[in-house]
Amino acid sequence: MASAQPAIDHAHANHDSYMEGYKELLRIPSISTDPAFKAEVERCAEWVKTEMERIGFNNCQVLPTAGHPVVYGDWLEAGADKPTVLIYAHYDVQPVDPLNLWVTPPFEPTLRDGKLYARGAVDDKSGVFLNLKALESIFAVDGKLPVNVKLFFEGEEESGSPNMAPFVAANKELIQADLLILCDGGFDKVMPTIGYGGRGIVATEVHITGPDHDLHSGMYGGVVQNPLHVVGKIVGSFHDDEGQVAIPGYYDAVLPIDDSELTSLQKTWDVIGEKYQADSGAKHFWGESIASFPVRVTSLPTLEVNGIWGGYSGPGTKTVIPSKAGFKVTMRLVNNQNPAEIAELFKNYVLSFASDTAEIEVKILTYGWPFRGLLDGAAVEALQQALESTIGKRALMERSGGSIPIGGMFQRELGIPLTNFGLGSGDNIHSPNEYMNAEDFDKAMEAMIRVYYNLSDLMG
Amino acid sequence: MASAQPAIDHAHANHDSYMEGYKELLRIPSISTDPAFKAEVERCAEWVKTEMERIGFNNCQVLPTAGHPVVYGDWLEAGADKPTVLIYAHYDVQPVDPLNLWVTPPFEPTLRDGKLYARGAVDDKSGVFLNLKALESIFAVDGKLPVNVKLFFEGEEESGSPNMAPFVAANKELIQADLLILCDGGFDKVMPTIGYGGRGIVATEVHITGPDHDLHSGMYGGVVQNPLHVVGKIVGSFHDDEGQVAIPGYYDAVLPIDDSELTSLQKTWDVIGEKYQADSGAKHFWGESIASFPVRVTSLPTLEVNGIWGGYSGPGTKTVIPSKAGFKVTMRLVNNQNPAEIAELFKNYVLSFASDTAEIEVKILTYGWPFRGLLDGAAVEALQQALESTIGKRALMERSGGSIPIGGMFQRELGIPLTNFGLGSGDNIHSPNEYMNAEDFDKAMEAMIRVYYNLSDLMG
Repeated sequence: MASAQPAIDHAHANHDSYMEGYKELLRIPSISTDPAFKAEVERCAEWVKTEMERIGFNNCQVLPTAGHPVVYGDWLEAGADKPTVLIYAHYDVQPVDPLNLWVTPPFEPTLRDGKLYARGAVDDKSGVFLNLKALESIFAVDGKLPVNVKLFFEGEEESGSPNMAPFVAANKELIQADLLILCDGGFDKVMPTIGYGGRGIVATEVHITGPDHDLHSGMYGGVVQNPLHVVGKIVGSFHDDEGQVAIPGYYDAVLPIDDSELTSLQKTWDVIGEKYQADSGAKHFWGESIASFPVRVTSLPTLEVNGIWGGYSGPGTKTVIPSKAGFKVTMRLVNNQNPAEIAELFKNYVLSFASDTAEIEVKILTYGWPFRGLLDGAAVEALQQALESTIGKRALMERSGGSIPIGGMFQRELGIPLTNFGLGSGDNIHSPNEYMNAEDFDKAMEAMIRVYYNLSDLMG
Repeated sequence: MASAQPAIDHAHANHDSYMEGYKELLRIPSISTDPAFKAEVERCAEWVKTEMERIGFNNCQVLPTAGHPVVYGDWLEAGADKPTVLIYAHYDVQPVDPLNLWVTPPFEPTLRDGKLYARGAVDDKSGVFLNLKALESIFAVDGKLPVNVKLFFEGEEESGSPNMAPFVAANKELIQADLLILCDGGFDKVMPTIGYGGRGIVATEVHITGPDHDLHSGMYGGVVQNPLHVVGKIVGSFHDDEGQVAIPGYYDAVLPIDDSELTSLQKTWDVIGEKYQADSGAKHFWGESIASFPVRVTSLPTLEVNGIWGGYSGPGTKTVIPSKAGFKVTMRLVNNQNPAEIAELFKNYVLSFASDTAEIEVKILTYGWPFRGLLDGAAVEALQQALESTIGKRALMERSGGSIPIGGMFQRELGIPLTNFGLGSGDNIHSPNEYMNAEDFDKAMEAMIRVYYNLSDLMG
């Protein structure tokens, strides 16, 4: 039973150089959703692969997909009696707009008041980098790892992982393991959590076309249907006045939430609720009549419009009926909801607004299945003990409102147990001024080092 | 009774140099609605003033307003027995986006297949320039003008003329006249028209604020009201399924359309209707159950959304609940509707969607009154005879669906009779690829020359 302490000491001793390395990674603008950044995503993948090789991993590869590459590497010399752990994180990041709201540029990592500001500092370069540094520290003191490890770093999570399902299906043998740990979430030393479930997702884009060119709204208002009015009719019909999704059939496959689940959700909520609400910056909340807050954010489906465009949005007035308008929607799905079926339901609903004066096109951009991870057992206990040793607390088991598309996909493709262990301590993910709490850089790395040793002890 | 022919001959003989002069004017990007172009609007005003002086006008001035300047000049030596004619046109132009749809750049005037493409080539630099050249031609052959003329060229018509009412009120003596001719409209030698009425306008901008920063829609969807959903609720409620405005009280002040008006509208429509519809590029029309097409486009109020914004509209997906969203609306008003009252009605209606989860701000950008010009009499006959001599046809008297805010404003401030004589032959005003038919450059100028001589004969 090897001790984690030497590796932890090594990590602490190398804090400064590790932090410099992190800044190097954060400087690469690996925005997966915008084709203009394709070369930067590739550069990021190469950077990660080079690091993997340097710290002692074998079989390191930048594996092409139909979209952005997966970076893979393994070290399988811990012995057949030790478990093989597949680690997932993603090296791509969200777009940065509105750029003008960033206090310092998103790809110039800047330390201010103990916070390291950069796009991806939490989501999810922390998952990639802190694993690499945890493993580097273990290698440095032990010359080997306590378990067999396969690293799988995705490059298109923020685009909804459109190519991961066929990639995983085609590479089952390479990545098969005894346990999958998804490292794409928060590390909170005040109220630690381990996610055991996430919602599915369907991302769509709707395009509406009216007249074949923009028209003068003084000359053709009232006689040519305005595509922006069609946007209003559709978007305005998505929810009832309480915030319930009003598309017929939307909730048909949603299973009732059982009492034990409700109890578990409420127990977690009693601890995290206040902060969760405060972090939103919202003055008031919405939809209380539908279900309790924790149920709404974890266990009910949603439909959110993420953007609308069309016509003139500059200063002053432009009297135009635009030829085209559109909007983007993401839907979050739970348990029994099939993303393909919900996509079809949505598509048919939106198309029902089409007429001989407004053409409508619905594009389905991505699907992701809901997933359900481990609630207890040796793997979860390994994580719990790592947290307890590092920050003196065990985690609450948490069901997340977000989606980790690869979670449901791995579950369907590989059939292996999975759990979720976030390494990102900070805030403003997906917003301007994303930051990591610098003092938790070492804490999260320390916890991850312990996870590897604990898995060796408890699963070995 | 002086003949117009020598001046017309002079104009034709100078076609090439006049056309070069027009291109010079069209190259100035005098977009009034966008503050970034403020200096260009000023440059355009100076250019116009310099031309006015050069051709023989007196008292030429670039007169400041709270917004963009008015260019004024007069020539009042025709004698007290001759009428004083106030000519109105505007030298500012619409914005040009979407820029990528222009075949050639909007401010590089380009002749292709007999069409001169440029932003403002019709609306309304034609009204400014063809008047200047008509007057230059008359001066060149007669050394004087047949009537007293005051030129009044506005620089913010495309922004809704926010500063014209106080400007005119403060300059009544300078601009008082016997007749106002609004030269801001189309010149159509196949189906000539003279506008005798225009709708009023209220331009507004609505801002909706939800949470104090952008949120992750997976974490806060369904618990934080999404400002884009509020946009949908509001915009989706503006019209019923037939296209009728659904704001309570919106039609209260609309007077019934009397039979003679209906007959006049229908008579004009029988001639212009087919082309009007074809020019829209719309496959089908909208709102037929409310009233006939000509009534809808001229004599009923409208409410058109001209732009919506908020959230992410780039490629791919961004799972965001934006903090802010908004939209722009213009309303067209008829006869008895008071713009200030309609603005208040709109504001209260939109504010009724505000809640403790969504703040709403309504900005009223501009007001404009409906107007009613001359239907017959000496001035209208002067225009009719000018058209008959030039193109062999008399014009249909037309009520316009568009707004000439200054029309209603002049009527209220100066109390003088007004008529409308458009000089712009072409299409795609307010759209990409605006163009003037090059062969009508001389025709419209010729007609305007005749107008000045006819007014001298018929009103003198």
